[in-house]
Amino acid sequence: MKKMIIASTSTVYGQEYLEYLLPTLENFFEQVSEITFIPYARPGGITHEQYTSKVSEAFGKINIRVKGLHEYKSAREGIEQAEALFTGGGNTFLLVQQLYEQDIMQLLKQKIESGTPYLGTSAGSNITGLTMSTTNDMPIVYPPSFQTLGCVPFNINPHYLDPLPNSEHMGETRETRIKEFHQFNMQPVIGLREGSWLEVSEGDIWLRGNLSARIFRHGKEPFEQATDSLLNLSH
Amino acid sequence: MKKMIIASTSTVYGQEYLEYLLPTLENFFEQVSEITFIPYARPGGITHEQYTSKVSEAFGKINIRVKGLHEYKSAREGIEQAEALFTGGGNTFLLVQQLYEQDIMQLLKQKIESGTPYLGTSAGSNITGLTMSTTNDMPIVYPPSFQTLGCVPFNINPHYLDPLPNSEHMGETRETRIKEFHQFNMQPVIGLREGSWLEVSEGDIWLRGNLSARIFRHGKEPFEQATDSLLNLSH
Repeated sequence: MKKMIIASTSTVYGQEYLEYLLPTLENFFEQVSEITFIPYARPGGITHEQYTSKVSEAFGKINIRVKGLHEYKSAREGIEQAEALFTGGGNTFLLVQQLYEQDIMQLLKQKIESGTPYLGTSAGSNITGLTMSTTNDMPIVYPPSFQTLGCVPFNINPHYLDPLPNSEHMGETRETRIKEFHQFNMQPVIGLREGSWLEVSEGDIWLRGNLSARIFRHGKEPFEQATDSLLNLSH
Repeated sequence: MKKMIIASTSTVYGQEYLEYLLPTLENFFEQVSEITFIPYARPGGITHEQYTSKVSEAFGKINIRVKGLHEYKSAREGIEQAEALFTGGGNTFLLVQQLYEQDIMQLLKQKIESGTPYLGTSAGSNITGLTMSTTNDMPIVYPPSFQTLGCVPFNINPHYLDPLPNSEHMGETRETRIKEFHQFNMQPVIGLREGSWLEVSEGDIWLRGNLSARIFRHGKEPFEQATDSLLNLSH
């Protein structure tokens, strides 16, 4: 009984860390007293301790304790013992490299697939897909593979951004980048705008939040998936 | 006698492909009648033929012929025979993967260091640095290494973008990404804004174009390098 929340971002503009998600998380983690937090993505290079303390503060508001994965005797032990899991955002290359280095990629997948509630934001959402190849992050370290958890049968593009009207910047738009991805990869890509999340309940995947999501498939035109609807990739 | 132009972008807003650089290139390639073009980065997924024909059209305006690397019997032969070289932009991961697959990374480095004039734009500039780890591109394919030519003793961040004032987007700014890079890497990073380029003449590296460049070093505050000045990393 898979149970996941895959969120585009931890924070929406003008709000506190995780604030917009807290009502949802209170419900999602109803039976949970402690979350095991995977701090490896280290946004802005902060330490595992600093990151865990920030997360702990947010979850304190809904009376859930947080224990960083670095606080266990080993990362494998932390995953095995976890009552619930949260992987925070930051740099996806660093996160994936660490998951491989600590030898927990496969274990984490099994743990999620056996029903342990999982929350991901940004990089922590990216890794729930088939590969990390649709991350927006900078390749600051070299992971041994781009393959990730594959807990959902597609790739995620978090912080999905529509082309900026009147932009004079000549770098590729997000849509162009995903089009390039589809020259070499077959799986669909879910462009999750900030404030959107996927709610996975076994086979059912719902889009939640205020906005629609943009769905990209190999060799087809992208389309918009309405919020509060079941994801349907054969649109 | 190294001779390189390392440009942030091929195209500035509102102009034709390479237009802003043509006066410079006419001078830089004065002795050259044919350029060997490396089309591997395939912007938007276009073919090697399409890309080469686009480049050929631009260089036609200054009476230089263009031959795509895919038109030679082998990529190695193309590099060996090249009178001058141009690597165009697109996806850096794809470009680097192809340079390794065709076994020309080292050969290309030697060719440039022996004095063959080299032009790079965007991804083609990125690879002149020590690693490709400060690219902005999406990791659509997995290269066997992030190490690149190392023809200059730093990394390049092309299309360098200042933080957007009043942006409500919560994805990392370019400066944050480069700060994360410096948690794990020591080499300086040259943030080249669009319309800027580096002119390498053996040991001397000049910044050219209308704008200043932003220089990031490990453990230090970034600073602005004025245009038409010699690059000085020990600022």
